[in-house]
Amino acid sequence: MKAFVIQRHGGPEVFEETTLPDPQAGPGKVRIAVRASSVNPLEIKIRSGLVRSGPQFPAILNGDVAGIIDQVGEGVTGFEIGDAVVGCAGGIRGYPGALADYMVADACLVTHAPQRLPLETCAALPLVFMTAWSALVDRAQIQPGEHVLIHAGAGGVGHVAVQLAKARGARVATTVSSGEKEAIARDLGADDVILYKQDSVPNYVQRLTGGTGFPLVFDTVGGGNLDASFEAAAVSGRVCSINTRSTHDLSPLHAKNLTLHVIFRSVPLLYRMELEHQSWILRNMAKMVDAGTLRPLLAARQFTFAQIADAHRYLESGQAVGKILLTRNGP
Amino acid sequence: MKAFVIQRHGGPEVFEETTLPDPQAGPGKVRIAVRASSVNPLEIKIRSGLVRSGPQFPAILNGDVAGIIDQVGEGVTGFEIGDAVVGCAGGIRGYPGALADYMVADACLVTHAPQRLPLETCAALPLVFMTAWSALVDRAQIQPGEHVLIHAGAGGVGHVAVQLAKARGARVATTVSSGEKEAIARDLGADDVILYKQDSVPNYVQRLTGGTGFPLVFDTVGGGNLDASFEAAAVSGRVCSINTRSTHDLSPLHAKNLTLHVIFRSVPLLYRMELEHQSWILRNMAKMVDAGTLRPLLAARQFTFAQIADAHRYLESGQAVGKILLTRNGP
Repeated sequence: MKAFVIQRHGGPEVFEETTLPDPQAGPGKVRIAVRASSVNPLEIKIRSGLVRSGPQFPAILNGDVAGIIDQVGEGVTGFEIGDAVVGCAGGIRGYPGALADYMVADACLVTHAPQRLPLETCAALPLVFMTAWSALVDRAQIQPGEHVLIHAGAGGVGHVAVQLAKARGARVATTVSSGEKEAIARDLGADDVILYKQDSVPNYVQRLTGGTGFPLVFDTVGGGNLDASFEAAAVSGRVCSINTRSTHDLSPLHAKNLTLHVIFRSVPLLYRMELEHQSWILRNMAKMVDAGTLRPLLAARQFTFAQIADAHRYLESGQAVGKILLTRNGP
Repeated sequence: MKAFVIQRHGGPEVFEETTLPDPQAGPGKVRIAVRASSVNPLEIKIRSGLVRSGPQFPAILNGDVAGIIDQVGEGVTGFEIGDAVVGCAGGIRGYPGALADYMVADACLVTHAPQRLPLETCAALPLVFMTAWSALVDRAQIQPGEHVLIHAGAGGVGHVAVQLAKARGARVATTVSSGEKEAIARDLGADDVILYKQDSVPNYVQRLTGGTGFPLVFDTVGGGNLDASFEAAAVSGRVCSINTRSTHDLSPLHAKNLTLHVIFRSVPLLYRMELEHQSWILRNMAKMVDAGTLRPLLAARQFTFAQIADAHRYLESGQAVGKILLTRNGP
């Protein structure tokens, strides 16, 4: 099969097209004729060697996948050849990725594609949805009526988190950097949108919560923003963070009796923990799409697999608003 | 009434004996003729001005109290004059402490004293028990059979945490600094005792967990020890910390998908949150004492209220193993 791989760490230019043996669906696995994938910041980190959780060289990157099952391994139930599926199933250590003609995936890491969106478009959702679900539902146990602050509500994880929090009955405030993104966040259902460049944490905490802070803060940004999240949290609140590789003064956690949930989405795959639960998350994703409560925000430019280097350059430029979709053969 | 107060921050010498008007039990409160209290590190921090959550000057310190109710305020049910009670009810902003003839306390911050121990001895337990319960039960939701690492199992909070974790069905490993404390920790029920000065985190994680780490770590020490706690935690585990005012690299939380629960025991009082729940915790404490599953570890030296300065010096010397009991008039 044709595959796009990296043989070393480096810039976007390290991607190359190659031919690899067609993979076969072993026990518990399905083989997917890949139609589409999407770019996530994790793949930039794997490509550049910033994180060491990538697949072995020659490495096929990308977890998100949408396609058609064309082989079903021993012991797999619930899937048949010809089924349209979507999932986040690889592109990290031990799991080949989606940038190829075929992807062999654990059956519990894909689900039947929802009907309401084109199959290719669905490939924008799995990684960001599973991340948002892990944070808001599994770890923070978001409650109906709860007041939630989601940082970067027009971002990859953020735009899905806003929709998920709304679907769970929360009241959602979100930060954005521009008027264009403010309109997007409102359209996604955010109740309050904070233009953080023109505002301060004490100001918006006072305005939106009367000064008490948010019982739940989802930090999809990380770095110094995590300190802003600690500052915006209410006493006895929870902060979720998905990008937590920096050093922080933890005194605010102490003063406010906080819980910090750090989410590293690849852990279930890397450690083969709770794989069945991933299937449950994906089924919820498909249900939300079909219920009309979840849709991906797509960037202005989309790419084919052969254009993966340009897709990485586009993400790294910071110009993309929304998810960058990758189709195997173009739209 | 006679009271021991501080009028300024400083060393142990700032305590002075004074006479204050007898307090009266307002609505929802009881007045306790105080028999005993105990010293906790929090009071050292309040006395020295390290934390700003102390009562107004002239400040009566100390939360832990054991005594006899001699006034019952309006609306209080379940308590009568003459009842022996124990609790952790003050000594911080907005709440007078126990170092006096009388302490007026919220009725939900005391409970009927257990029968199995002398009333005075019970005063060693409330603050440390409520801290351990908040961490292990309320926040970390400790599970039967779970493998728990408790740092400083012969310390104030630690020795109670070991007993609580055992009573909840956990398997308990704990760190201590000496052979004397190892014997204490085993006597309290610890399954495995780690002499941390002669051991390393990777070593004991390998020996006790086969290298996978502990799903729950309770750090009662803080500072640099918190990094050891992150290191000892299993993937997707939880770390509880009660002394978290320092700066830390959070990368290990990310790599292992951890939750960090930071517990500041004074928050329910300072913010008047979940006060009724404190009553529930105290009732569980009394039940455990009467069931024989909880007893305080008492330091070799005990003091009267008039000797409070010496009691602080003793705690600050680091020589005390176990809780320092304070009795109003001596044993």
